[in-house]
Amino acid sequence: MINVAVLGYGTVGSGVVEVIESNKKQMNKKTMQEMNVKYILDLREFPGDPYENKVIHDVDIIMNDPEVSIVCETMGGTGAAYKFTKMALEKGKSVCTSNKAMVAAHGPEMLELAKKNNCNYMFEASVGGGIPIIRPLMSSLAHEYIESIAGIVNGTTNFILTKMEREGAKYKDVLAQAQALGYAEQDPSADVDGWDTCRKIAILSSIMLGKTVNFEHIHTEGIAKVTADDFVYAGAAGYTIKILGTSQALEGAYDEEARKAGKPEVLAMVASYLVPKEHPIALVNDVMNGVFVTGNMVGETMYYGSGAGKLPTASAVVADVMECAKNIGNNIPVFWDAEEAKVADYLETSRAFFIRVAKDAEDTIFEKYPDAMNIVVEGRKDAGFILPVMTEKEMADFAEVLGDKLLGVLRVYA
Amino acid sequence: MINVAVLGYGTVGSGVVEVIESNKKQMNKKTMQEMNVKYILDLREFPGDPYENKVIHDVDIIMNDPEVSIVCETMGGTGAAYKFTKMALEKGKSVCTSNKAMVAAHGPEMLELAKKNNCNYMFEASVGGGIPIIRPLMSSLAHEYIESIAGIVNGTTNFILTKMEREGAKYKDVLAQAQALGYAEQDPSADVDGWDTCRKIAILSSIMLGKTVNFEHIHTEGIAKVTADDFVYAGAAGYTIKILGTSQALEGAYDEEARKAGKPEVLAMVASYLVPKEHPIALVNDVMNGVFVTGNMVGETMYYGSGAGKLPTASAVVADVMECAKNIGNNIPVFWDAEEAKVADYLETSRAFFIRVAKDAEDTIFEKYPDAMNIVVEGRKDAGFILPVMTEKEMADFAEVLGDKLLGVLRVYA
Repeated sequence: MINVAVLGYGTVGSGVVEVIESNKKQMNKKTMQEMNVKYILDLREFPGDPYENKVIHDVDIIMNDPEVSIVCETMGGTGAAYKFTKMALEKGKSVCTSNKAMVAAHGPEMLELAKKNNCNYMFEASVGGGIPIIRPLMSSLAHEYIESIAGIVNGTTNFILTKMEREGAKYKDVLAQAQALGYAEQDPSADVDGWDTCRKIAILSSIMLGKTVNFEHIHTEGIAKVTADDFVYAGAAGYTIKILGTSQALEGAYDEEARKAGKPEVLAMVASYLVPKEHPIALVNDVMNGVFVTGNMVGETMYYGSGAGKLPTASAVVADVMECAKNIGNNIPVFWDAEEAKVADYLETSRAFFIRVAKDAEDTIFEKYPDAMNIVVEGRKDAGFILPVMTEKEMADFAEVLGDKLLGVLRVYA
Repeated sequence: MINVAVLGYGTVGSGVVEVIESNKKQMNKKTMQEMNVKYILDLREFPGDPYENKVIHDVDIIMNDPEVSIVCETMGGTGAAYKFTKMALEKGKSVCTSNKAMVAAHGPEMLELAKKNNCNYMFEASVGGGIPIIRPLMSSLAHEYIESIAGIVNGTTNFILTKMEREGAKYKDVLAQAQALGYAEQDPSADVDGWDTCRKIAILSSIMLGKTVNFEHIHTEGIAKVTADDFVYAGAAGYTIKILGTSQALEGAYDEEARKAGKPEVLAMVASYLVPKEHPIALVNDVMNGVFVTGNMVGETMYYGSGAGKLPTASAVVADVMECAKNIGNNIPVFWDAEEAKVADYLETSRAFFIRVAKDAEDTIFEKYPDAMNIVVEGRKDAGFILPVMTEKEMADFAEVLGDKLLGVLRVYA
């Protein structure tokens, strides 16, 4: 019998219990064990809940019960979750989590603890909800040198951008709708300012490199500046607009000498991009998520699915529970060191840019960039261009030149 | 040291050697072992090849060398490949293969042999080339009741259909081009008649159910009847056309009583479908592959990547080599019994159909199916309709009624 404790009986936690109870027969067959949810830890009572009798309020009951071998941390945050995760791992109990804040901030520490105590710390659900992405990266693609990752990993912002595109609606109006529908928080900044995506791309980048990409070093921009007007030009030029967490392995990533010579290892960023409509990631719409991974041998791969929601996210936690159940007493090595990777200064990196400007700025643009592509849309009072590849610094300088004639800037994904 | 032998030094086999040699450092790090290609078995000589000195012609050298723990079977077919796979497994050597014909025909037998001999039989590369799909199904989604799978798993036919759509070209012309480019065989029937897709969906269906879906019981149609005219109507109605291997879990799949009462477990089919352009699988173009998997908890997921080609396919073989290397002497359970699943009679299953008919058949259609959706395209001499959901049998009967006024029939994917 495998006894599981669930910490936090909120959306994901209650989903974990539901997945285990619904699919117990399948889980028992595949693990050749009997799965059992023994405790649910929460501060609240849940009168009338079918699992009411499993709810406890004292974490020590779980920690001191040698029968509990797997703990699902679905509390969120880095306060009590940090403390309880540590306690569990120190007791040799494996921890499966959906808590990206914990993983991004303390992943290597928890992995080290798990290793010392012959148990496991797993976090499939921390990125991309139900999508199998962490496990494919760590197993199916373990032998690859990953060259780049680009992910739509936040359902709220993808929902907003999709709705803006389909309805030609304004950001503020769609955000208000998303809030009314419960797809966006009343304080939406974690999503719309890109912080959630930032934590997730930090986790993916760290697995890519095998060392820590500090999320505080990731240049992060949100979607608040994306306008209905931008979508008009993007559409006319064959693009949609998506907020992507991107990560690119650079010279120092897999070359020890280059790294020692001070070459950066990775460029990680969060920003809104024009994405060609025929690119597979362009069809990741609404609250769905998709992660595009390029390996040096396998080439392009993509992983798509529900990026949020109770059951999909819980399903990913339970996938980890399954693996932990098959590995009681056995630590599965995870290659993610505490050592920090050298993140490139994004201002020195290059890409193409889309800009939207006042009509009378056209001459300035053609003068400076004769290769600029003018996106012609009839009856507009502004003008849209795709500028050739240049550094972020150069674009920032040109933005100063344009001053208030510059109405919008977005990057172009390629 | 992990010594690997490669059987068959063709496209995939030479790719396997290339992937191992290129990515050896990464492989050694992640397996905490030293990887080494010790032998390459082929009937031919390869003078000037960098690994010429590893080429041998006598399989017994490999089988009798206790240092060889992993064998990559990249020969294809079910003749010598069958014999050598059995020999290796009986000697306790794990086998990693890209050979879908072997896996579809003899998978459970080889899995049983591997289990008996504490080694592994792995076949990630047998479906979807480089795409991680077998491993996610067997690990990340192990706890799910998979409800359906729909895959574009043949690069040749997807290339042909994509080109037909983009260029408005005829099937025969595009096939000839594909043959000239080496994307299609001189005898293209294994691809264009759907047999390759059939083997692959048989493998995926078997993993889905945990028992054998006999590929001989899968109704299989190819792409030869898809015309440029069909694409005109499909496009006008918001669809593209794809050849899909599909598999649906039916009443008896996960319900022992229903199964005992004789309910079918699965409907597996290979056919060309109209696919809505906004469906993620519609953006799987050219030689790329994509597999769409729906689980009862995780909902919709998709896996996308290079479905063929030397390095992507070899990368999938090497992913298996990695897992075998980490599990020397340890059989990883695979849930795929020899027992055959009851496959539904496709004629009794239902779906919507697209038909293309002569103009003067329009009245017959509206009379019989007042809900039929007429796809209006200006200046055409034929007419296109989407008929409401009906059984395959009913469609076949209606096709007889229409006689030679019926110019084309395709299924609609939903």
